[in-house]
Order: sequence, then structure tokens, then C-alpha cells
Amino acid sequence: MKKIFAAILVALACVCASAQQYTIPRETMARMFPAGVVSPQINADGSVTFRCQAPNATQVMLSCQMLDRNAPMEKDEAGVWSITVKPKSPDIYPYCFVIDGTQIADPNNPDIFPNEGFKNSLVDVRGSVPSMQDIQDVPHGKVSYRYYTSKRLGFDRPMCVYTPPGYNPAEATKYPVLYLIHGMTDTYETWFKVGKMNNILDNLIAQGQAEPMIVVMPYANPYPEMILRGLAQAYDAMNTEIVVREIVDEVMPYIEANYNVQADADHRAVAGFSLGGRQTLATGLGNPDKFHYVCAFAPAIFSNEWVTNFDNGTYSDPDSINSNLKLLWVSCGIDDGLVTASRGLDTALNDKKIRHQAYFCQGAHTWMNCRDWLELTAKMLFK
Amino acid sequence: MKKIFAAILVALACVCASAQQYTIPRETMARMFPAGVVSPQINADGSVTFRCQAPNATQVMLSCQMLDRNAPMEKDEAGVWSITVKPKSPDIYPYCFVIDGTQIADPNNPDIFPNEGFKNSLVDVRGSVPSMQDIQDVPHGKVSYRYYTSKRLGFDRPMCVYTPPGYNPAEATKYPVLYLIHGMTDTYETWFKVGKMNNILDNLIAQGQAEPMIVVMPYANPYPEMILRGLAQAYDAMNTEIVVREIVDEVMPYIEANYNVQADADHRAVAGFSLGGRQTLATGLGNPDKFHYVCAFAPAIFSNEWVTNFDNGTYSDPDSINSNLKLLWVSCGIDDGLVTASRGLDTALNDKKIRHQAYFCQGAHTWMNCRDWLELTAKMLFK
Repeated sequence: MKKIFAAILVALACVCASAQQYTIPRETMARMFPAGVVSPQINADGSVTFRCQAPNATQVMLSCQMLDRNAPMEKDEAGVWSITVKPKSPDIYPYCFVIDGTQIADPNNPDIFPNEGFKNSLVDVRGSVPSMQDIQDVPHGKVSYRYYTSKRLGFDRPMCVYTPPGYNPAEATKYPVLYLIHGMTDTYETWFKVGKMNNILDNLIAQGQAEPMIVVMPYANPYPEMILRGLAQAYDAMNTEIVVREIVDEVMPYIEANYNVQADADHRAVAGFSLGGRQTLATGLGNPDKFHYVCAFAPAIFSNEWVTNFDNGTYSDPDSINSNLKLLWVSCGIDDGLVTASRGLDTALNDKKIRHQAYFCQGAHTWMNCRDWLELTAKMLFK
Repeated sequence: MKKIFAAILVALACVCASAQQYTIPRETMARMFPAGVVSPQINADGSVTFRCQAPNATQVMLSCQMLDRNAPMEKDEAGVWSITVKPKSPDIYPYCFVIDGTQIADPNNPDIFPNEGFKNSLVDVRGSVPSMQDIQDVPHGKVSYRYYTSKRLGFDRPMCVYTPPGYNPAEATKYPVLYLIHGMTDTYETWFKVGKMNNILDNLIAQGQAEPMIVVMPYANPYPEMILRGLAQAYDAMNTEIVVREIVDEVMPYIEANYNVQADADHRAVAGFSLGGRQTLATGLGNPDKFHYVCAFAPAIFSNEWVTNFDNGTYSDPDSINSNLKLLWVSCGIDDGLVTASRGLDTALNDKKIRHQAYFCQGAHTWMNCRDWLELTAKMLFK
């Protein structure tokens, strides 16, 4: 068998090590077989051992959201750096290695955080009892990668669409729709790959805690493609209008033409995280005739801008919001840099007597919180 | 506006830099805005500039399949290493950076090569004329992430399923199915994310060159989950039987129960790359009553093992293959370490008078070749 292993390794070395086509790098060998570097390794006690092969580095740190600060890793005689840490609670944690100051995703972990601004890996530390974000033995919906033509932007764009278990366009059943927006530098994949929205919905639906719904995850950053096509000079993150128009004029009609949906405001929700929370408020409060459920997760807003918005009529008036919306939600972690702004929004909404739910919980600007907020709000949608 | 940018950056810093929750690393700042590191940058002349911020590194190399060998990058005063290279032809090339001997994906590029053994990024250099692998202005199918329960293995497993434009389970139209298997250390996502099988099929179908078909991309490596569950000790790559049984006994029935498919051998094909090519031969030639189209792309085989297999009756006899199969295809790049084995298979098939097509082209064990082979064979399926 040695011969065929060698042949595959030579072939694989072309793919892995790219240019060095006929030599098999030691690192490649190590990565191909279990004797090589395993990372992350989840231990029986719930701790995690992270390993990084970097024989020539002078310092390798673990940067992980289960820790308060970066932690130094230790090098063995083979040049593999490692550290074992234990999170306070089971969850899915982003992490990266910092090799002599340069942040990299874990080269041995295929589970990558989809993002345009940084590279993190994900480690899934499961508890003794399955959580809502774990895949469980229940009927599964599916997540589809779809491509639509944006007439406004003039090019084809991707999105992810979750359809619940049993969804069958051949049947007459129509479903409500949640439009779910990622954060700044995230992509249309992040709510799926990091947010585990499909597992959360599958499990909530199986337990009868959430209505079966379609979840649409648009790509809220058109700038990389616009810049490539000479349609924009730079990323204009604060331009919510471009995202509102894309969702309302392009994505919504596409979904309503291609899925069995209930196409009215009582059956339409919008939710989003961080910059996507800002876009959610602009989309939902700007169109209360179209969205009766609006959930902002740690929205990227000024503390006072919503007072101004309500006062100057940028968005709908309080009466219109109260009479239309069935849910207006804002949540933020108390250690999140944006919590002051969320508290400001809560206060402004109180001052204007706008009915809403505010939730300030432990934690920072993390996807651990995001998944909890999706679980909490999904239970309240379309009821 | 500075204030809100700062607030978002503080918040993002929690996500990006993980533990350093209230300081914004210089690298994070640089990555958030266009003034930061842009990589890869595709220039007007078709060349590509790669950049990597690693101020403390002593050597950074570019490892890219558009080059014959790794190329040294040059450091500027800000600690950003860069190099500009031009591929011989437009294509999608895997690459990584080698920082002081450690291979990493490009931290500034969200386009990642899904793989369990190494981390590469992808750069898509497009030509003046769109190629079959580019997204074009044609009707688009969709790729769905689905989860089925493997009774044999005892746990839920993922797969990707491509349905062609216009696929509608509400209609009576039934479609043929191609089972498409990834290579060793690849995942069920690799044919989608690297192989661009959806673009290739969309474009071929739009041009009338391929039959509309469903393409099923199973996950041919059950070992990570088996090891996690104590069902296996190590990765047994050479065990094709486990993959054959998973496809025939689990994936096929799931697909035939959940999609409008033509469930007979004339409308079933299997194809795969590298180790997936080996699994393809075992699946297809072992079950010529179930698969009438069998396409092995650079299969990971011994030069002589198929002679033995035919002689000792491991797989069907030549007469049965000739009378059943409508296409038996083997292809390999002439610079591929596995080409001797593919040539050996071609010779064995000739000796046994088994009708087949063999194609030996330029290039090595690459996904650039894989995409071409999918294009060439997809045109011949189900006709």
C-alpha cells in the first residue's frame, strides 16, 4: 500500500504545496495522516487543544473568543505550537492564531468563518445536552445558494435561502419569510456557517416553538463587485439605502416569484446583526407597510440618531410603527462597544412610546450572542 | 461619521481580534478599509498582485498553481509583502502564502478552498471572453446543502445537491442524476466552491450542450465524524467499500425519494477526482446495473490493480461493462504523478477490449483540469 500512498501524496502535493510538484513537503505529509497536526482537538473534559505547526516562528498566540485575552502557545521539538484551554460553557467559538503578529485561520481546521475582513476558524464545543444550534435527529430543512439578477446593480448576485423541513413547492402551503442580514465584512454565508440558522430553525420547528418559515440571507455588501466593475470607488458601509433598495426592490420580488410565500407584511420579518442591524432598522422602520417584524441585533448606530430620525420624519412616525409592527426588537451584549447606542435606541423608543422589546445580556459583539438572539426572536415571529 | 466608524470598529475588533475586545489592532483597522491590504488584486493586464501583512516575518513566499515554483515576495516599509505575477491563461488558481515555512490561506481573501488537509485561497482571473466556469447571464440552477441520516453509519451527514434552472418538483419532469465525488482531503463543498460545477452546468445547459441534470455531491470522507464518535481509529482512505455503500445504499435512495429523478442506470452517472476517481471506478464498475456512465478524473489507483480486478472478478466482467456502460471515461494530466496509473488503466481496458474514452492532457493534479474534464464529460452524459 505504500506505493499508492506515495503516488497519491505526490499528486496531492501538487494541489497542496502548489508549485513544488514532485517533492512532498514534510508539512504536507504531516497533514495527510493522523500522526500529523490535529487541531482543534476537543478533549473528554470539554477543553480544547489547539495546535499550529510553525517551526520558524518566534511567538505564536491563540486569539479565541473563549478567552479574555490572547494566550501564548508553547512550541515542542517538532516545531508544533500548542495550548489547551477550556471554555466557560459549550458553544461555537471563533479563533485564530497570531504568528509573530500575523493573524491566520487554523490551517488544519476546515471550519472557516466566512468573512471579507478577517480569517477566523470555528471550534464547536458541544455540551452533554444538545443545544439549539447543534444538528439534532429532527427533520432538516435545506440551505440553497441561489443567484439572481439585480436590475438596479446590473449584475448577478448570490444569496442563501433556507426552506424548512417538508417545504414542497408542489403543495399549496405558503410560508412566512424572514430576511436575515449579516454584519459588516461578513457575507451571505455567515448566518448559515457561523450563525447555524438552519440548525436553530430545524430544532425550534421540530419542538413546535417556531413557525415553519423561509429564511432569506441576502449579500448586503455589493461593493466588492461594484468596485471590480468600476461602479464604485470604495466601500461605503454607511449607505443603508443601497441595501434597503436591494432587499425591497430586488430580493423580495425574486423570493416571492420563486417560493411559496405569504407575501404580506404580517408574514415578513427582517433581522440583522451589527451593520446588518442598522440595515434592518432602515429596512423595517422605513417600510412598516412591508415588514411587521423588525429585530436589530447589536445594531451599528449612533446613540442619538434614531431620535433625530423619528423627529425629522426619516422613518415612519411612532403611531404608524405602533399600529403596524407586531415586534420591534433590539438586543445587545453589555460588554459590546455598541451597547450605549442600543441603550440610546431603547430610551428613544421609550420616549416616543414606541412598543418594543429590549434585551441586554451578558457578552460582547459575538456570534455566540447572535445565535441566542435568533433563537429568542424566531420563537416570536409570525404568531 | 468618525464616531460610528470607531464604534463599529471597537465592536468588530471583538469579533476579529477576538480577545482584545477594547483595542483595535492596527491590522484590523487596515483590513476594514480600502486603504488597508488588498489581496489578491487583479490588474488590468491580467496579472495579479498578492499582498500579505507580516511585518515580523523574515521570509514570505507565494505558492500558487499559476507558477512553476514558489516565488519570494518583497516587503515594504509597512511590513506588507507583495508580488505581482501573470498566469499563462485566465483560470481560477489555488494559492497560499508560506510565512517562514508555514503555509497559510490569504487572510484578506474570503474565497477559500474547502479542504481538510490544507488551506488554500482562490484567485479568479477572468479572460476577455467568459469561460464555462464563470457565472454568466443565463438561467441559474441552485446548490442546496442537505442533511440526511445515514442508517449504516448512524449519524446525520451533509451533501450538496445541484438542481438545474427550472427544476420544479411540482412538475412531472424527471431528471437524470450525476453523483460527483471530491478528492482526498476535499469536502462535499469542493466541487461547488472550487469545481464551479454549478456555473459549468448552468452554462452548458443554457447553450444546449448538456442535458438538464441533478448533480449530487456526497461527502466521501466519513472518518472525521466516525473518529469523533469512536467508530473508527483513523482515516482509512483506501476503504472504497465504505463510500460505495454510502452512495448506493444511503445517498441514492435519499435522492430518489426527495427529487424528481429518473431512477434507472441509463439516467445515473458517477464521476470523481483523485481518490474520488478511485471511488468512482469502484462504485460504477462494481455496479454496472446501476450506473451506465462512469468518469474517473485522475483516479488514485495502482497501475496494475484494474487488470487484477478484472481477472479476479472483483468488478464486473468486460462483457457486462461493454453491454451496460454508455460511457467509461478516464482522464489525467501528463504532469500528474498519477498519470502512469491512468495510462495503466487505459492499457488494461484496451487489453480487455472494454470500450472507453481516455484523455491525457496538459497539466498536473489540479482543479483547473478537473473543471475541464467535468465540462467535457457533462456534454456526453444521458445522451
